[in-house]
Amino acid sequence: MSDLELPPSISVCGNTDKAKEILSRIWGKKGVFTCTVGNTMTSTIPGVSDAGDTPDLTLFTPAADAEMLVLGKTVCMKGIPINPGGIPTPATLTMAALQLSNMPLYIVNGGTKIKPNIPCFEVGGTCGGSILSGKAVSNVQECFKMGKILGEMLSKTCDFVVISESCAGGTTTALAVLMAMGVLKENLVSSSSPNNPKELKTKIVNDALAAAGIKIGDLAKDPLKAIECVGDPMMPANVGILIGAAKNVPVIVGGGTQMAAVMAATVALDKSVLNNMIQGTTRWLVNDPNSDMRRIVDSVHPDIPIAYVNMDYSESPYEGLQAYEWGYIKEGVGCGGSSVAAIVQSAGNITCADLLDRVHSIYRKLLDI
Amino acid sequence: MSDLELPPSISVCGNTDKAKEILSRIWGKKGVFTCTVGNTMTSTIPGVSDAGDTPDLTLFTPAADAEMLVLGKTVCMKGIPINPGGIPTPATLTMAALQLSNMPLYIVNGGTKIKPNIPCFEVGGTCGGSILSGKAVSNVQECFKMGKILGEMLSKTCDFVVISESCAGGTTTALAVLMAMGVLKENLVSSSSPNNPKELKTKIVNDALAAAGIKIGDLAKDPLKAIECVGDPMMPANVGILIGAAKNVPVIVGGGTQMAAVMAATVALDKSVLNNMIQGTTRWLVNDPNSDMRRIVDSVHPDIPIAYVNMDYSESPYEGLQAYEWGYIKEGVGCGGSSVAAIVQSAGNITCADLLDRVHSIYRKLLDI
Repeated sequence: MSDLELPPSISVCGNTDKAKEILSRIWGKKGVFTCTVGNTMTSTIPGVSDAGDTPDLTLFTPAADAEMLVLGKTVCMKGIPINPGGIPTPATLTMAALQLSNMPLYIVNGGTKIKPNIPCFEVGGTCGGSILSGKAVSNVQECFKMGKILGEMLSKTCDFVVISESCAGGTTTALAVLMAMGVLKENLVSSSSPNNPKELKTKIVNDALAAAGIKIGDLAKDPLKAIECVGDPMMPANVGILIGAAKNVPVIVGGGTQMAAVMAATVALDKSVLNNMIQGTTRWLVNDPNSDMRRIVDSVHPDIPIAYVNMDYSESPYEGLQAYEWGYIKEGVGCGGSSVAAIVQSAGNITCADLLDRVHSIYRKLLDI
Repeated sequence: MSDLELPPSISVCGNTDKAKEILSRIWGKKGVFTCTVGNTMTSTIPGVSDAGDTPDLTLFTPAADAEMLVLGKTVCMKGIPINPGGIPTPATLTMAALQLSNMPLYIVNGGTKIKPNIPCFEVGGTCGGSILSGKAVSNVQECFKMGKILGEMLSKTCDFVVISESCAGGTTTALAVLMAMGVLKENLVSSSSPNNPKELKTKIVNDALAAAGIKIGDLAKDPLKAIECVGDPMMPANVGILIGAAKNVPVIVGGGTQMAAVMAATVALDKSVLNNMIQGTTRWLVNDPNSDMRRIVDSVHPDIPIAYVNMDYSESPYEGLQAYEWGYIKEGVGCGGSSVAAIVQSAGNITCADLLDRVHSIYRKLLDI
């Protein structure tokens, strides 16, 4: 079935043959969705993260996202996470995909300052420090090991696993890890704002690498050390889950540049993962003129297949959603991965139109309009 | 299909019509197994618990049991949990049932001093104090609430949920909660030893109730308060999971007297659970001459159905297992519930003979014989 005909709701890029081959293996099969939340104090550096109305509120965003997915509402804060300007968290799309597909959903606490008020899988992580310290994440080996066990556990319960993240400030830590590993030599990473503060991020990453005494590429073969120095606590758990799950089943890596750092670390540790790994993301990110996600993924490994959901909010009656078409948000909370997974699991019966309808009803309910 | 013909591997008692009705609804369907681990300092009172080679080692038993289920071996201690005399933990039977049925398995950390070295669902609990303090469990409301969310989450992923426990000292805390609630007026509870230290347990429970200022039956309508005063941290999580899951699917309550306390608290909080609840246990416990599990369950509610697995270790070549026939262990770590679940999920294709074979190979591997 490598002659799989994709419905218009998803497209593939990267290694398209491999993308179709992996998708054909899980087409109509049962997935499990995970989202690993983490906090890094890096997100509170003014200007770094727009994933929250103020720098301090960015720390609440992962917990709030997780609560939305599990409870359908937030508990740790009032309202829902928004970018300055009122653009809603991509968790709205993830909720839609999970509701329509009825996929089992588990939250993993990679390490947080603000814990979600829901039962999470704990892996032994704590809130990450600012990467400017050069010692950003503690207990990395343990979290990686626990993640690996969790990935194996989950892979025994389903035909494929989706991994994803909510970690504000995570594109900056991703850039730092990718540069520490030498996967990137320059800043190609994305942002949740079209006014991607590239200079600021580049300066922070250079300072972080200097603080850790790392030159670009020094840690190509020691990705867990790179994460320990300049990463965030979402990473070790997700690297572990990916390695553990991909031993047994395909894994949809849901996300953009943050998950590219996870893939880079994973591939450096265990190349065999490439047989069972496909990135799942959004049309918004693949087509983002301000980043170059495909070049980044290509730098991780030229063989990585990508599937993306063709969501289009341009006809949405809500400006907060239309903003996704203007370069805001684009990815996060596994919105692309869960959408791809919903389409795959339903063998194409769930469409972008279905997802859009559900996003609208979720949006209205959450904003009480 | 209420004319369900039970295979010889399981029998029913209590409300047998209801037992068959519930079993027929889940016959051949897919279950999820959970084990909630907890520590109570009550287990370290000399003489209270035999679930460990020494009083202090009883604190390691829940973590070791959980590690065995997930990893197939222990990490927190050398060897496996044994009663004095070398009788192996019932987790050996649980492992056999989970391996043969390939059922998804999750460990919930109700509150422990020794944490299992695996990813657990956290619900906000901490190690329980000695019930002699009269303030045995903290954060009960929160753990109950998290348990409820978890139960709902899990119920969406399967056709039935199995809940169980590993908490040394738990028959004493169960007796205390059952007496605080007035479900029991005297000590009918079981023990992992045929020399059930009834006088000691009765004295401890009376002292605990006095320390908490509770007379028998005072907390009939406030089971969470009873748990807070004289229970253990396995309880609030499991009460929550039971209520949350039973809203949507049948729940097999795997265990004996400890889980009777969980059922008592649950029924006091939400009678509707009775429509979706069946105890799953072992022939050893149902036939234990030193306890009266059926009378206890009848006191909880006369309408509770019971299914039990007809395991028989009398022909086992291993004395450690034969001891189960002499009144040792009998229940724990959901060995009865998981066995019943394995038989149910396989529509009777898994038999006691299959389980015994697998227990033997697990036993040989663990003891390296």
